[in-house]
Amino acid sequence: MTVTDELLANAERYAATFDKGGLPLPPARRIAVVACMDARLNVYGLLGLAEGDAHVIRNAGGVITADQLRSLAISQRLLGTTEIVLIHHTDCGMLTFTDDEFKESIRRDVGVKPSWAAEAFTDLETDVRQSLERIRLDPFIPVKDSVRGFVYDVRTGRLSEVK
Amino acid sequence: MTVTDELLANAERYAATFDKGGLPLPPARRIAVVACMDARLNVYGLLGLAEGDAHVIRNAGGVITADQLRSLAISQRLLGTTEIVLIHHTDCGMLTFTDDEFKESIRRDVGVKPSWAAEAFTDLETDVRQSLERIRLDPFIPVKDSVRGFVYDVRTGRLSEVK
Repeated sequence: MTVTDELLANAERYAATFDKGGLPLPPARRIAVVACMDARLNVYGLLGLAEGDAHVIRNAGGVITADQLRSLAISQRLLGTTEIVLIHHTDCGMLTFTDDEFKESIRRDVGVKPSWAAEAFTDLETDVRQSLERIRLDPFIPVKDSVRGFVYDVRTGRLSEVK
Repeated sequence: MTVTDELLANAERYAATFDKGGLPLPPARRIAVVACMDARLNVYGLLGLAEGDAHVIRNAGGVITADQLRSLAISQRLLGTTEIVLIHHTDCGMLTFTDDEFKESIRRDVGVKPSWAAEAFTDLETDVRQSLERIRLDPFIPVKDSVRGFVYDVRTGRLSEVK
């Protein structure tokens, strides 16, 4: 039995008591959250989100790349969100390597390097600011009145805003 | 008071009772989930995940683009995950437009089109299969023994596997 099979059994239990079948497509709270994929960062639990509240966009690092700009443009232009929250976190895997090292290790293994940037970083707050700036510089995201960035502390469960 | 401020108040409450400060960086269940950003899709609730269990990668559509391949390569190569679950869902916003329409509407608004593909789709199961195939064809993701795709029904809370 794989872990996938175990999670599917959990999904059967979720469906058995499901009572949120009437929710509309646009997020009720009109907000999009961009966060790291890290397993310890429970975005719903942390922000007190319920089904229907917010778009949740996640990737390695919570960094802003073309695909997050695409998702945010769709979120705002087609589904009416107007606020953006960005969350990086302490003890992030992206602090443990460099793009050059990682891509060279892939080249040694596979024979070629991927064409993408790995987006590793050395300082959390600097990278939050850079990701916020990538959003601010993007011409296709229309609403930027509330674009705020945070660092989540995986030891304390606490969010700190990056100014 | 913005919605962001309200979510920050929720985050204070989360931190006040936080008791998961000792979790390691690699996901305990060694699995990565890729899902749509849709507000009604509560990945933690649906799959019964707790803090520390799984990488969660999300974007508009739950489609596989370069950034999800990057995140999955980091997840497997640096943080030891070995299974992948992909989740699209019914009533998805990506079913409501075409790339051409959306990009033309942006051009009319901003003056230029974004260089990214919007990744809209017309059939859920076909797009799940395409996203699974993008993972299978990627040379940089090493472990592909368990890569499975599902459609989540937002009316019933039920997951159906796409074979």
